[in-house]
Amino acid sequence: MPEKRHPAIIAVIGAGQCDGKVRQMALEIGQEIARSGAILICGGLSGVMRAAAEGAKAENGVTVGILPGNDKAEANEFIDFRICTGLGEARYLIIIKTADAVIALPGRYGTLSELGFALKVGKPVVSYGSWEVSDEIIRANNAKEAVQLALQAIPG
Amino acid sequence: MPEKRHPAIIAVIGAGQCDGKVRQMALEIGQEIARSGAILICGGLSGVMRAAAEGAKAENGVTVGILPGNDKAEANEFIDFRICTGLGEARYLIIIKTADAVIALPGRYGTLSELGFALKVGKPVVSYGSWEVSDEIIRANNAKEAVQLALQAIPG
Amino acid sequence: MPEKRHPAIIAVIGAGQCDGKVRQMALEIGQEIARSGAILICGGLSGVMRAAAEGAKAENGVTVGILPGNDKAEANEFIDFRICTGLGEARYLIIIKTADAVIALPGRYGTLSELGFALKVGKPVVSYGSWEVSDEIIRANNAKEAVQLALQAIPG
Amino acid sequence: MPEKRHPAIIAVIGAGQCDGKVRQMALEIGQEIARSGAILICGGLSGVMRAAAEGAKAENGVTVGILPGNDKAEANEFIDFRICTGLGEARYLIIIKTADAVIALPGRYGTLSELGFALKVGKPVVSYGSWEVSDEIIRANNAKEAVQLALQAIPG
Repeated sequence: MPEKRHPAIIAVIGAGQCDGKVRQMALEIGQEIARSGAILICGGLSGVMRAAAEGAKAENGVTVGILPGNDKAEANEFIDFRICTGLGEARYLIIIKTADAVIALPGRYGTLSELGFALKVGKPVVSYGSWEVSDEIIRANNAKEAVQLALQAIPG
Repeated sequence: MPEKRHPAIIAVIGAGQCDGKVRQMALEIGQEIARSGAILICGGLSGVMRAAAEGAKAENGVTVGILPGNDKAEANEFIDFRICTGLGEARYLIIIKTADAVIALPGRYGTLSELGFALKVGKPVVSYGSWEVSDEIIRANNAKEAVQLALQAIPG
Repeated sequence: MPEKRHPAIIAVIGAGQCDGKVRQMALEIGQEIARSGAILICGGLSGVMRAAAEGAKAENGVTVGILPGNDKAEANEFIDFRICTGLGEARYLIIIKTADAVIALPGRYGTLSELGFALKVGKPVVSYGSWEVSDEIIRANNAKEAVQLALQAIPG
Repeated sequence: MPEKRHPAIIAVIGAGQCDGKVRQMALEIGQEIARSGAILICGGLSGVMRAAAEGAKAENGVTVGILPGNDKAEANEFIDFRICTGLGEARYLIIIKTADAVIALPGRYGTLSELGFALKVGKPVVSYGSWEVSDEIIRANNAKEAVQLALQAIPG
């Protein structure tokens, strides 16, 4: 559990809607993030964002949601800190910039764009079943490994 | 202390540099916010932002800083959750939109602009020695009163 | 007419809805901006934004609209260059940052916030019937004077 | 030349620094955009952005630059309309949202992120030597073809 003044912050990105298998992947990622003592940051809405936050809260983790609109009620119920941006998709940049590392789950073009942006600004990116469009992306085979690799890749 | 799932979030705005008297005002505002169990949100840098966060941490409160740049190290040492936006002054909008109420301390045009934006989007604004350019601004005479008035003005 | 490579850019801010008198003021401001050879920038929607753009086009001026949403069809019919931001109110900052000077017409808190932001970032602000909350705001008595004062106040 | 009230707007994205071959590709893209009567929008800085704008101006086209900072002087000399955002990389979203179609030239992760975002929001994307990570990306073999395909792909 977070003993440090500032625990690592890990972003989870992925599809806004997800089925049983991807939902399970996201749940486990959230659990592993919380177990590691890191903070989870995400877009705060549905799909992968919701399942990951649910997993984190199941392990007493801390969750931050960077929301597109002006109403905190749009956040899913597992988000502790609901940041309303009113900036629409520009919130993706805030998620990436605030995170120390990024774990990408299956998703479509929004996920691709976020992942590309993370690479652009030099954040470590772990793919757990997501886009593998660059050798700089770290591949993980399970949730525990994904979080470990993400934490290890954080500089300093 | 925060027993509720989502404590109130109070924004503190004011000058980026401040002298002894305004610094003391900001310290006390931060203390009162923490004592009330609310979360403090601010721009995370110096002046009023720093003093308010210092006050909140002195009372074991929780502080969120919405930062202009890409580097969390630019936050002052009293910020728990350091949100990097990379959006410059557009972070002001995030502070206001995330807050349930706004307390304005002495400041110049940045404070005026934030305060105007808070009024525009319908957030309660308490002036504690700040711009009083509208009858809709609630005036407070001391820090305890400012926080009480802010909390009372939150709808619902 | 714009002979220069980069004519001056003047922002017009004011109420999103306006009556006969303010509409007339905005129309004349737009006309005077176009006659001076400057470019008009505004939020591109209704009220003062629409009337000013209408005035500018009546004098063959050039108009730029910085829109809140994703659909250029939300611009009024007098906007030549329709910039879709998807950023909501954060577009105000783009309007102010792009302008060389700002002319404020009657408006409420949105206008106050924009005007405060313009002062914060050091842009000349001319009030033509708007908020006069600082000695740094230049006051104008008619549209022709407002545009002349705005152009004169542009540095260098 | 633009006879229509609102010519098509084509975004050009690609590397911020480029060598002889990519520079030539960008120059030709800019020329073809101008010849088609469309408006060129880009990030307004160096590399592909500069070469494309240079090409467009050589054919008397119109160029719009969406700049990251607060100073219009950061634009390259071939930008007609210099929009200062102060929003850093968030300007990418404005470029994509304002464009009717996007032509991607060689570039790295910034280009990947913009291209992914364009796909996400449903804008036609033509790759001219760029990332080809989806079947929805239209491939072009030369500049003339790239611009024709981009224009043809614009809905309505």
